[in-house]
Amino acid sequence: MLINHEDIIAASATPQGVGALSIIRVSGKNCFDAVDKIFKGSQKLSSAKSHTIHYGKIYSHNGNVIDDVLASVFRSPNSYTGEDSVEISTHGSQLINQKILETLLKFDVRLAEPGEFTKRAFLNGKIDLAQAEAVVDVINSRTEASLKGARNQLDGLLSKKVNSLREELINSSSLIELELDFAEEDLEFINLDQIKLKIEKIITEIDKLLSTYSFGRVIREGVNVAIVGKPNVGKSSLLNYFLKESRAIVSEIPGTTRDIIREELSIDGILFRLFDTAGIRLTEDIIEKEGVLRSRQAVADADLVIFMNDFESGFAGEIFNELKSLSGTERIITIFNKVDLAKNADVQSDLNISALSGEGIEDLLKLLKEKAIGTETYSEQTAIISNARHYAALEKAKQNLLAGINSVEEGMSGEYISVDLRNAEQALGEIIGEVTTDDILNNIFENFCIGK
Amino acid sequence: MLINHEDIIAASATPQGVGALSIIRVSGKNCFDAVDKIFKGSQKLSSAKSHTIHYGKIYSHNGNVIDDVLASVFRSPNSYTGEDSVEISTHGSQLINQKILETLLKFDVRLAEPGEFTKRAFLNGKIDLAQAEAVVDVINSRTEASLKGARNQLDGLLSKKVNSLREELINSSSLIELELDFAEEDLEFINLDQIKLKIEKIITEIDKLLSTYSFGRVIREGVNVAIVGKPNVGKSSLLNYFLKESRAIVSEIPGTTRDIIREELSIDGILFRLFDTAGIRLTEDIIEKEGVLRSRQAVADADLVIFMNDFESGFAGEIFNELKSLSGTERIITIFNKVDLAKNADVQSDLNISALSGEGIEDLLKLLKEKAIGTETYSEQTAIISNARHYAALEKAKQNLLAGINSVEEGMSGEYISVDLRNAEQALGEIIGEVTTDDILNNIFENFCIGK
Repeated sequence: MLINHEDIIAASATPQGVGALSIIRVSGKNCFDAVDKIFKGSQKLSSAKSHTIHYGKIYSHNGNVIDDVLASVFRSPNSYTGEDSVEISTHGSQLINQKILETLLKFDVRLAEPGEFTKRAFLNGKIDLAQAEAVVDVINSRTEASLKGARNQLDGLLSKKVNSLREELINSSSLIELELDFAEEDLEFINLDQIKLKIEKIITEIDKLLSTYSFGRVIREGVNVAIVGKPNVGKSSLLNYFLKESRAIVSEIPGTTRDIIREELSIDGILFRLFDTAGIRLTEDIIEKEGVLRSRQAVADADLVIFMNDFESGFAGEIFNELKSLSGTERIITIFNKVDLAKNADVQSDLNISALSGEGIEDLLKLLKEKAIGTETYSEQTAIISNARHYAALEKAKQNLLAGINSVEEGMSGEYISVDLRNAEQALGEIIGEVTTDDILNNIFENFCIGK
Repeated sequence: MLINHEDIIAASATPQGVGALSIIRVSGKNCFDAVDKIFKGSQKLSSAKSHTIHYGKIYSHNGNVIDDVLASVFRSPNSYTGEDSVEISTHGSQLINQKILETLLKFDVRLAEPGEFTKRAFLNGKIDLAQAEAVVDVINSRTEASLKGARNQLDGLLSKKVNSLREELINSSSLIELELDFAEEDLEFINLDQIKLKIEKIITEIDKLLSTYSFGRVIREGVNVAIVGKPNVGKSSLLNYFLKESRAIVSEIPGTTRDIIREELSIDGILFRLFDTAGIRLTEDIIEKEGVLRSRQAVADADLVIFMNDFESGFAGEIFNELKSLSGTERIITIFNKVDLAKNADVQSDLNISALSGEGIEDLLKLLKEKAIGTETYSEQTAIISNARHYAALEKAKQNLLAGINSVEEGMSGEYISVDLRNAEQALGEIIGEVTTDDILNNIFENFCIGK
């Protein structure tokens, strides 16, 4: 789709539903003139100062008052998009919102694409691409940890780190290229051992970033946990215990239609989605084929599996074997419920609990968290990656740098080494959008809501 | 509940859900100081001018950035509530919203009661009570006509009318009282015939207002229409035809749980709720007892009933008799479907239609509208009442005025007449909140959402 970034765009910026206020955002060069056509206050917005608020009425094109509103004026470049912008605050009604938008569309304003305000902020240099992506993550954050991670990226910690690596690469390749220019004069600006050391140091830095991904991904996306076990071992009791606990249960997502019961739980700000495969057996059974398939899928998709046994019926060996083939042992947490019935402590258990009294459940939560994010802790100032696109770009940069080291070791000409470094630098540039394509941009911004 | 109207209050003002922006409203004397404790921008809000916007960061009480926001400053009396107010615009996330509110609550701010911002606007004389009630109606408006009606009231048309009637009553009763004061001096300020004429004129004005209620109530609340008929006469086809039509179908309300199918339709901006009692027979039947009861209730509650027959199976006399006893004939619209099968036009039909081809459906819509709001039209400048509370207050005023006329006719002393006029004036004062009680206020504002 060809989008003109000179147009004046408008969209509703607040969620649908009943609330006290609704906001309509308008952005684009001289958008004040367009809004002035439907807004009548004591002053024209086109003559208003930036960052001022004006009371007035919005009229439909046939002259009826739609609503009395507050219009906030932002002048380029001091706005979210970097362009002239107006935010219209109306009584909270979708009908009013819609009527004002419809009226605006009659005056050279078009409806914004999803994410177009943020896209313009990026195109106008207000934020880089990693920060633009963080905007969505901030909005979608449902736990403390995910919000903190997204804020970290929005505040530019990742961008700063990536930029400093890019600068080092640009320096190194410039020196190599300078040397090539003066090759005939036999001047040495840099020696190849130094270059190699430098590349290795940058690879170490990239590896550090890459290693934050498992943590970053988990805090951004949450952790899927399948609870598996024979009927009556206490899976529902365990879920109920979580629900009763004072820990914040994250509110359910409307429209979840799976048959498999799902609850969400925040452990120290990390979102855990618990799938109870209640009543559905893993082992093959013609009648329950559909259920079995769904259950297997839940296990295969899960980041972690709580394999639940009890001291009454003992270790469910056949389920364990099934689980191992679906999931691999390192993802399985084997627990035994009904610890009060334990006569023999000699079981293959990671943890013994009582889903009724709550015994052992604190330890289970600790174990879940440890399995999900490891024991590594990061300071607030550490750049964390949480996005598969960033991971891929860092990997690409690393491969180019490894090729560069190879070129150095094989004694190849500086031209080759320089190309490797430039390629690595470009891969890093993709993260912050220094290097980008329409495809990448469309991919990113189509996931935004309209109005952002 | 005892509420202190000196407190600083705060609440989320935008609907829950994912959107680009969320707004938190804060209001109360010197609330700038409270917000300054968590907001850091280039300038303190407490020293900012009214109607200016300030970029900054909101910090939690332990010093972490919660979000970067825009804070809008409104200084008393130039705000919605009439008090010092701040609106904090954050990234659209309930989590951020909640965290900022939690942090504010640590600094002498309390969560607002439902409607408390508007209640303060009323208590501080920014709007009268009828206007405050109109705020909810504006927010809840789902069709053009209801919005226009609510805007009419918010703009003060009703208040102006009520006030002018009150002034006339105050004038008249003052004159009567003046005459009483000078009774010994035998001065005549006004004669009783004139007073009687004046009261009659005011009653006429009140009657005019009262007569707008059936129209006002319908545009405010919408019209419930039950569609009743034998199975297979085409009730679903009729609903489907409405759905296909280009006319705006109002989106369904989430959480509607009735078994009776309900669709909403806007005819010339008036909301019609269509209840299809499909498959549920009106006549008694043990097995379907529950369904029968629900169906009868839908008919009894309906403002209008479309009694649907078809030319295939003929007039369903037993259902018609049932309907008459539930609903009264003037609310029943008898239609015959499958007009293509009509051999004999001699049926007791208000209208013949084809739910498949759409024949006659325009006429049906016209008939529905006419039955719902009558043929009377009102100019945009007519004061319309739409609220049962206002209707009751006008009725009370009228009764007092009729008593006043009676007093005049019976030659009673001016004191009695004056009391009647004062009572009528007070009844009118209830509409705009000149005379009010905590009970009335609580009743009104508890229907608001929090944040308004």
